[in-house]
Amino acid sequence: MLFGGTGDLATRKLLPALFDAHCVGSLHPRGRILALGSQPLGQDAYLAMLESKVRPALPAAAAAEVWQAFVARILYLQVDANAPEGFDALAELVRARAAPVVVFYLATGPQLFVPICEQLARTGLNHAGVRIVLEKPLGHDLASSDAINSAVAQHFAEDQIYRIDHYLGKESVQNLMAMRFGNVLFEPLWRREWVRDVQITIAEEIGVEKRGAFYDGIGALRDMVQNHLLQLLCMVAMEPPASLSEDAIRDEKLKILKALKPIELNEVAEKVVRGQYCRGAAAGDAVPGYVNEPAVAPDSQTETFVAIKAEVANWRWAGVPFYLRTGKRMQSRVAEIVIQFRDVPYSLFPRPLDHEPGNRLVITLQPEESIRLHFLVKHPGDTQALQPATLDLQRMLPRGQGNRNERKTGAYERLLLDVIRGRLGLFVRRDEQAQAWRWVAPIQQAWAQSNLAPKLYTAGTWGPAASSALPSRDGAVWHEEL
Amino acid sequence: MLFGGTGDLATRKLLPALFDAHCVGSLHPRGRILALGSQPLGQDAYLAMLESKVRPALPAAAAAEVWQAFVARILYLQVDANAPEGFDALAELVRARAAPVVVFYLATGPQLFVPICEQLARTGLNHAGVRIVLEKPLGHDLASSDAINSAVAQHFAEDQIYRIDHYLGKESVQNLMAMRFGNVLFEPLWRREWVRDVQITIAEEIGVEKRGAFYDGIGALRDMVQNHLLQLLCMVAMEPPASLSEDAIRDEKLKILKALKPIELNEVAEKVVRGQYCRGAAAGDAVPGYVNEPAVAPDSQTETFVAIKAEVANWRWAGVPFYLRTGKRMQSRVAEIVIQFRDVPYSLFPRPLDHEPGNRLVITLQPEESIRLHFLVKHPGDTQALQPATLDLQRMLPRGQGNRNERKTGAYERLLLDVIRGRLGLFVRRDEQAQAWRWVAPIQQAWAQSNLAPKLYTAGTWGPAASSALPSRDGAVWHEEL
Repeated sequence: MLFGGTGDLATRKLLPALFDAHCVGSLHPRGRILALGSQPLGQDAYLAMLESKVRPALPAAAAAEVWQAFVARILYLQVDANAPEGFDALAELVRARAAPVVVFYLATGPQLFVPICEQLARTGLNHAGVRIVLEKPLGHDLASSDAINSAVAQHFAEDQIYRIDHYLGKESVQNLMAMRFGNVLFEPLWRREWVRDVQITIAEEIGVEKRGAFYDGIGALRDMVQNHLLQLLCMVAMEPPASLSEDAIRDEKLKILKALKPIELNEVAEKVVRGQYCRGAAAGDAVPGYVNEPAVAPDSQTETFVAIKAEVANWRWAGVPFYLRTGKRMQSRVAEIVIQFRDVPYSLFPRPLDHEPGNRLVITLQPEESIRLHFLVKHPGDTQALQPATLDLQRMLPRGQGNRNERKTGAYERLLLDVIRGRLGLFVRRDEQAQAWRWVAPIQQAWAQSNLAPKLYTAGTWGPAASSALPSRDGAVWHEEL
Repeated sequence: MLFGGTGDLATRKLLPALFDAHCVGSLHPRGRILALGSQPLGQDAYLAMLESKVRPALPAAAAAEVWQAFVARILYLQVDANAPEGFDALAELVRARAAPVVVFYLATGPQLFVPICEQLARTGLNHAGVRIVLEKPLGHDLASSDAINSAVAQHFAEDQIYRIDHYLGKESVQNLMAMRFGNVLFEPLWRREWVRDVQITIAEEIGVEKRGAFYDGIGALRDMVQNHLLQLLCMVAMEPPASLSEDAIRDEKLKILKALKPIELNEVAEKVVRGQYCRGAAAGDAVPGYVNEPAVAPDSQTETFVAIKAEVANWRWAGVPFYLRTGKRMQSRVAEIVIQFRDVPYSLFPRPLDHEPGNRLVITLQPEESIRLHFLVKHPGDTQALQPATLDLQRMLPRGQGNRNERKTGAYERLLLDVIRGRLGLFVRRDEQAQAWRWVAPIQQAWAQSNLAPKLYTAGTWGPAASSALPSRDGAVWHEEL
């Protein structure tokens, strides 16, 4: 069931992901998709909306009969989150189908999470076969997130609750786990002795688009740092878990969040850069500044950019800077994790001029997924010179014959299937979420108390100059692909 | 100058290597090649011999004008190593040319090394600008090698003497140095904590061919183990040298040879396998056994196969077996170094059925050079399964545009140019050579005292069963490319 069945997330991400799963046979033949929304649409009108909004973006393979078989799974039902009647009808429908697993995906604003959960519970739709998926933002600080989680917990057990962070479903993030823990080659290097710094960037090229009213009350810290960036940091920094079981992995992530060195109020100015874009250019066209975007307050102090120097205070990582940054209206769209290894202790070979010192592992999540290792090989021929070279660890030929054309699984598809199968490992546990809010709290507080406005940066750049200065003070630089 | 200018080595390897160097402009424009031989050939007859023996094997690019320009460098001179007159004429010729660097490549049998060196000294051709290159075999044990080295040392300083081991000139062996010491990624793994065993194989598909008379007095231990296999072992096991200077590298190699745990007389039977091929098949054709080869004694006990379990007794390698093997009439022609890493301490992921445990780095020298890393990646798609994958570290695309077609430099070409430039790093120093003889001496001695014949193995196989048993006793297996 999709609450918010007419919304942006449902039509742009969730239904296409379910379509992909349908095509490869990952959905149970009798599995049904109930789309729930407050709009008074008939079944035909809803399907017509999907036909125009969802189908055009699907791969050319969405042939007529495949599409028909897919939409035959879909039923639209008008349900108003604040009106009990719709839920009674919903409950009757669900009982009639007697499906062993029922998933409610709450692709709605967080203010509806509690009313929806209450109604589901009232109509008995919180039995053990029911799972609910909660989308971000889950509150705007520790207290509000805690209030929602507590209210939901009155009706659902923690193992029924799937807090989704779609970055965790990316193939390259999954492969990072396989590389680290499936081979002996990386783990010995994956520590302070050999890693100089870690950089995690999620940069968007777009601005706030039509979401100004929503975004202006949120900002980049809550929208991206508290969830996505800290989750990725956990995936990089975590110790080997005892097993791949959901709680073994989430226990290790929680340990990292707890090991994050607190940023004290008086350190925020030094360790955190807060930026807001002003007018500039994107893709060659002039674009307005953030405060001139539709539905944004003209004196808004909301940050559209954050850069943070974090540190994981444990034996493995003490002293290794973790530089995090995210922003809108950046120079290009890129999401990546960079493990910058230390340089060799002493260089025997003449170094190539175009090489930054040290080896780098670059895990790219957007725009294309890849895992690249940058290192030096001998220049071919009669010379001792080295030259930089790059390996793509994800696009290697498997031994034997090639099967490069294997289908990739999208992040939402993987995660939706995990919900259906009851696999919680890639979802955020309540204590993780609370700990992440706890860590960003001093930053929120310092900004609230400060009279300083965010630093302005020209749209289409990598953020304010202070962002470059953050790693520079440690002798490091933000990674830029050559 | 090539002593042995009409011989097999000169026509099959050295002159083609010089031709390659000529083509890419690595030879000085006025550089000349004096081919010396005992045969009474005129210049024209010698060039005609090159035309028929050397030119056909050159790449199609050996156009007429290039070939002409190359042979214009060549002058044939009849010199009998045991007759003074030829050397007087040679000395006059060399003095007339007044070249600053004069290289004498002794591509002859070792019995001629001393007479040639004496004559060169007598005619003043041992001044500081003169370098001599000595080919294997340099003696047949410690005493005979020492005798030759001492006699040569009466006339030439050690830094004028280039003892060639062409395996050291291979691009992949050079790249092994670059990988280990130009990057921080491998060195931390390159030790007993992470390496389970090291395997070095030089397998030939051919038998003794027409060299039976020569080979029957030598055997695989002297022909391959004492020099090539031990040199490759040194390249794998050596500590980072203080610099790339010739003595820094050779000091480190010598340290490894000295750290090789001696094989005591009573351990030879356990740690060394001695084999001789009997009749079998090669490339689908029946082939005779070794004792039925031309010019081989019918009751010969000469080994055509050796496998050894060696150990480097130092902090880095203690307890790690180094399995060495070499043989004629093996299943296929391959020369490779395999670094077998330990398995992960604990496997979180379901293992693929077709995967041998642990990561492997395979450095192949023959038939094609490559450096391949075998490891596990995530199977693409909605699964946690791993699959084996292989990376070729040498054939990566350099960053920026590809230049995969860069010309490779052959081992002999590289080494000849190193002699001309006075770079001793890739040549074997006298003390290294002596130490290698010292290490194989107990094996020679045990075999001489033993009444046991070599173990017979069918031509076209991987040697006697005892060879498989050697690693098996430690739970290891010889690497076979899948």
